[in-house]
Amino acid sequence: MRSFMDEDFLLNTETAKELYHSFAKHLPIVDYHCHIDAKDIFEDKRFKNITELWLGGDHYKWRIMRSVGIDEKYITGDAPDDEKFFKFAEWLPQCIGNPMYHWCHLELKRYFGYDGILNKNTSLEVWNLCNEGLKDMSARQLILASGVEMIGTTDDPLSSLEYHKKLSDEDFLVKVCPTFRPDTVLGIDKAGFSEYIAELSAVSGIKITDFKELKSAIKQRLKYFKENGCRATDHGLDYVMYRPAGKLAVEGIFTKAMSGYVLTREECEIYKTELLLFLGREYHKMGLVMQLHFNCKRNPNSKALAQLGRDSGFDSIAPADSADSLYGLMDALEREGCLPKTILYSLNPNDNEWIDTLIGAFQDSSHICKIQHGSAWWFNDSKKGIRAHLESLSELSVLGGFVGMLTDSRSLVSYARHEYFRRILCAFLGELVENGEYPYDLAQLGEIVENICYKNAKNYFNV
Amino acid sequence: MRSFMDEDFLLNTETAKELYHSFAKHLPIVDYHCHIDAKDIFEDKRFKNITELWLGGDHYKWRIMRSVGIDEKYITGDAPDDEKFFKFAEWLPQCIGNPMYHWCHLELKRYFGYDGILNKNTSLEVWNLCNEGLKDMSARQLILASGVEMIGTTDDPLSSLEYHKKLSDEDFLVKVCPTFRPDTVLGIDKAGFSEYIAELSAVSGIKITDFKELKSAIKQRLKYFKENGCRATDHGLDYVMYRPAGKLAVEGIFTKAMSGYVLTREECEIYKTELLLFLGREYHKMGLVMQLHFNCKRNPNSKALAQLGRDSGFDSIAPADSADSLYGLMDALEREGCLPKTILYSLNPNDNEWIDTLIGAFQDSSHICKIQHGSAWWFNDSKKGIRAHLESLSELSVLGGFVGMLTDSRSLVSYARHEYFRRILCAFLGELVENGEYPYDLAQLGEIVENICYKNAKNYFNV
Amino acid sequence: MRSFMDEDFLLNTETAKELYHSFAKHLPIVDYHCHIDAKDIFEDKRFKNITELWLGGDHYKWRIMRSVGIDEKYITGDAPDDEKFFKFAEWLPQCIGNPMYHWCHLELKRYFGYDGILNKNTSLEVWNLCNEGLKDMSARQLILASGVEMIGTTDDPLSSLEYHKKLSDEDFLVKVCPTFRPDTVLGIDKAGFSEYIAELSAVSGIKITDFKELKSAIKQRLKYFKENGCRATDHGLDYVMYRPAGKLAVEGIFTKAMSGYVLTREECEIYKTELLLFLGREYHKMGLVMQLHFNCKRNPNSKALAQLGRDSGFDSIAPADSADSLYGLMDALEREGCLPKTILYSLNPNDNEWIDTLIGAFQDSSHICKIQHGSAWWFNDSKKGIRAHLESLSELSVLGGFVGMLTDSRSLVSYARHEYFRRILCAFLGELVENGEYPYDLAQLGEIVENICYKNAKNYFNV
Repeated sequence: MRSFMDEDFLLNTETAKELYHSFAKHLPIVDYHCHIDAKDIFEDKRFKNITELWLGGDHYKWRIMRSVGIDEKYITGDAPDDEKFFKFAEWLPQCIGNPMYHWCHLELKRYFGYDGILNKNTSLEVWNLCNEGLKDMSARQLILASGVEMIGTTDDPLSSLEYHKKLSDEDFLVKVCPTFRPDTVLGIDKAGFSEYIAELSAVSGIKITDFKELKSAIKQRLKYFKENGCRATDHGLDYVMYRPAGKLAVEGIFTKAMSGYVLTREECEIYKTELLLFLGREYHKMGLVMQLHFNCKRNPNSKALAQLGRDSGFDSIAPADSADSLYGLMDALEREGCLPKTILYSLNPNDNEWIDTLIGAFQDSSHICKIQHGSAWWFNDSKKGIRAHLESLSELSVLGGFVGMLTDSRSLVSYARHEYFRRILCAFLGELVENGEYPYDLAQLGEIVENICYKNAKNYFNV
Repeated sequence: MRSFMDEDFLLNTETAKELYHSFAKHLPIVDYHCHIDAKDIFEDKRFKNITELWLGGDHYKWRIMRSVGIDEKYITGDAPDDEKFFKFAEWLPQCIGNPMYHWCHLELKRYFGYDGILNKNTSLEVWNLCNEGLKDMSARQLILASGVEMIGTTDDPLSSLEYHKKLSDEDFLVKVCPTFRPDTVLGIDKAGFSEYIAELSAVSGIKITDFKELKSAIKQRLKYFKENGCRATDHGLDYVMYRPAGKLAVEGIFTKAMSGYVLTREECEIYKTELLLFLGREYHKMGLVMQLHFNCKRNPNSKALAQLGRDSGFDSIAPADSADSLYGLMDALEREGCLPKTILYSLNPNDNEWIDTLIGAFQDSSHICKIQHGSAWWFNDSKKGIRAHLESLSELSVLGGFVGMLTDSRSLVSYARHEYFRRILCAFLGELVENGEYPYDLAQLGEIVENICYKNAKNYFNV
Repeated sequence: MRSFMDEDFLLNTETAKELYHSFAKHLPIVDYHCHIDAKDIFEDKRFKNITELWLGGDHYKWRIMRSVGIDEKYITGDAPDDEKFFKFAEWLPQCIGNPMYHWCHLELKRYFGYDGILNKNTSLEVWNLCNEGLKDMSARQLILASGVEMIGTTDDPLSSLEYHKKLSDEDFLVKVCPTFRPDTVLGIDKAGFSEYIAELSAVSGIKITDFKELKSAIKQRLKYFKENGCRATDHGLDYVMYRPAGKLAVEGIFTKAMSGYVLTREECEIYKTELLLFLGREYHKMGLVMQLHFNCKRNPNSKALAQLGRDSGFDSIAPADSADSLYGLMDALEREGCLPKTILYSLNPNDNEWIDTLIGAFQDSSHICKIQHGSAWWFNDSKKGIRAHLESLSELSVLGGFVGMLTDSRSLVSYARHEYFRRILCAFLGELVENGEYPYDLAQLGEIVENICYKNAKNYFNV
């Protein structure tokens, strides 16, 4: 029996241990997509206690707490911080096999030097230890201590990027790059759309009365983002749509929406399709990576949405049919010679295989693995999920060209998930080698590990 | 090499052995959903031979026999019982890797003390041994010998529950509880619907001329079931539908159906949606568990249906898109504060992951894991199927709150499947521990095993 | 650590080794479905170098080369053959975990006696060795050296089968049988349809002015194929459609298409449905096996299609919903008593489970496992893909009746994939045995291995 989460955690072969400890472990982190607020980094945010750090905004933990029947007052409510933490700690042992169990213990080890087990009996000890430790920690210290080289935040086109600018004016060693995420611009079916467009007009200084002017305003924002270090863009789509209809149709739909009329689903899809095609062309022109996240069911529980708002731990997997549309969208851009570097993420793990063949249909000689299947996302950021992604990618595409892990997280201690990923990667490669499926060639294997864990992302995003 | 199905069958680590033998093995069985006839229990049914016990109504075995090309006369036909058994035994060895192979041998071991291997050479020996053994066995003896504490049967709303009543009047130690299964009431698209409604009217004593009165009649039956020990309800849906349309629409559709008109698919879905919403509210009010089984293709072979009738071994997996509708249905009930305890079962194993996230979106503090993803169902009741369910549930939800196994069986010896499940569960937990992914804490692990194998179900169903 | 691809490659238990070396290894190959040209066999084609053999038509390798960013001139372009090979060899090590890595090394071992590792450093050595070896090799020698007993080619109904005839006139020891693949006849939505029908008319000698005459012409071709050794038919469908509409409708649609009008998707589906039903009945009458390949996205990259043509490495998985239609199609044929032996292949690995239950709904006593779930196809012809197919088939059907592997390949050295399959099969069986899930009965296990690897296919196809 192997010890609980020791230094060889998840490294189930000698080769895995060698690859992890000699190659993966000390590599810097290029965290090219996350949800950390640049303001928190600039202001070097501090945390009053482990509850603020762990339970302040972590919808993964909230979801688990609700599942075991903990009252909302201990989750997002007004219970005292220590009671919230004790509730969480008490129930954590029920989460056997859940990545949360591992993330928590990795974070306790790496950031607080705690090697024990968190449960009801130890929760007071851990509470005190962490809170003591947090006195000497700040956002920047956490980032630096994690070996981060680049952070890709997630930013609305309206953003002034004030804190990105301030950070780049300072001597902070980590590149904090904005990511252009125009979900609100695509959200023609959401309340407040026309008000948002008015704001976009104000911020961009471009009058927006039609779709053509909207595109000009977007271009202005893209240029601004690019000037401020933006390397990538991102889209959160419930599902991928592809319903091309041409300029005239989209102009009519845009006008209708701006006039306050409710659109049909078909009209929304036409608008989103034309906008995605436009954005894809611009991204390609500007050398920006296009990230598409899809097959997510946002806010399925409308009562909870009304009470707790968005991103509170209710979003779930949507097994939507995005394949046909995604094939169509990629083909349309490629036909025009305008397909940007693209990373595809589906929340439905059943999509691994078709995505891994789709990407193979749109590669070209402009970059190794120009079209990527992004790392196992959100609910799939687990041992099984990461492993399934790696297996599918390696069998159906070229694993060596993979840009690797990102946290996609709101937390400053979730860099531990890079460690989690690297261990799973090394275990996977080690098994192939020790099963006789790949030569035991440390130089070659080490190169593959370094590329996937660090260099491929660095090159892909021009860091 | 490990011995064939010895006492450590499937227990591939020392921790697994410890968990199974010290904690799981001797726990009582709460078989909260099955298809055993209460009449058979009351009358203490006996079996003339192993063919009646094994091949009398087991569509799993029939399906296998057809697959290997055995003539129907040896399956459901009029061949002599011994010849039927010999045919089955002859072909069983071809089923390498099939759960049937394990179920048969577990049943031979546990109920007949046979430790050998069933095949062509041993079939006569086994035939004689089993038939000798069956002389001393009856339905009640089989149930008691299996350590069963509660049985949840499956009953039509029309049922008088005569045998449930008689059983509760006796001193039989096992609780035999009816389960309310109103598939016929939902079956507005099935032949005989209006005749069924007439019967429902007669049994309930409530005149049914419109949907409102139908609801009153259903309420009467629900009350009657509840008075007679009902804890749970069950629905067998081809797919989940959600097409809310309001009272007026459903009244019109009900009238149309009762007048003998053929309904459109849309109309059927409206009726079923409104009825499911009504039922959900009632279940919630009465504290009854709602079970939804879906994504099943019933009777795909119409020739076989005409010749052999329903439930004869032809039903299959339907990879239908039930997610959107299920999100909608759950949300509608939750919005009204009327979502009952719910257990979801899909026949399509690809649905594991989205179900395991969906349940997390509708939990609340009224009960630990109020919304459940039911144990691997039917075709998934296999080593791979159970394992996949456990892996998905543990990674995406909280395994410790799972209500565990049920047989869903027509057979009185299928309690062996609880043993099968428990072994797979202990193997899974043992691997996590021995891989260093969970602490070796026997008290904690034992508690988890006992909860999943017994206590969670006991609490969930108020047994 | 096990050696890289030694004689026990993939055989991870002693039982697996025993099963492979004692039973599987030396069995003949019945390669009942491939894309080799009978002309190449008859003319005993030779290869000028390893680039012609390996990169001449292998879209798997092209796809990998594009993925790593190699310029098209080294793939399908006019770069010198040695440079093409060196590019491929240089990048192959990035394909860790890809079946291509194993296929290449198996082929180098079995056909060229090379036991080393192909990479940048060894590419010149391998280039020379292979080209030297190829001097003594020809198509027939490669086939004979591979132990092939039967080859099922893939042939258009128009084919004169000239080379099949010539081969059967000779004393070539391997049966080369045509397979009837009427994709062009079904391709009413493809350009050139009416011209094709004109050719069919000419070849069959039957005037085709309506659907009825089309059927007569097809019958003539089927008879001709059957006379020339045809055992099986094959269909490449994007998805399975089932939209029965009767004779009158299909006659109208056929006339419309022949007159050059564009058809709706619905009309195309009606035509294809009626044609598939007709073909199914004919296949049944003539004792021909029906193979259906589906859920493939053909030519998703229209730019690449325009530049490089079909079958150039862009086709991908389509997660289409083929289940409902396939249930309908099978049921319609079965209802008439006209369901032929059928093998189903989906390109989407998520379809494994429902297919494995569907086949169980249409079996009968005319043949063991009359309806088959075909071996893991194309992108699924990998360790994980084959394993997933075997696991699903064994748990949900009867593994012992499986007709086993086929190459589906254009290459004369891809018989190594039979070895790959056999090793994975023996590993799977060995694990079941050594885990105590099946008795260690070598006679029984050996029979199962021989049946799946050879005898079942021989019987199924009457070889």
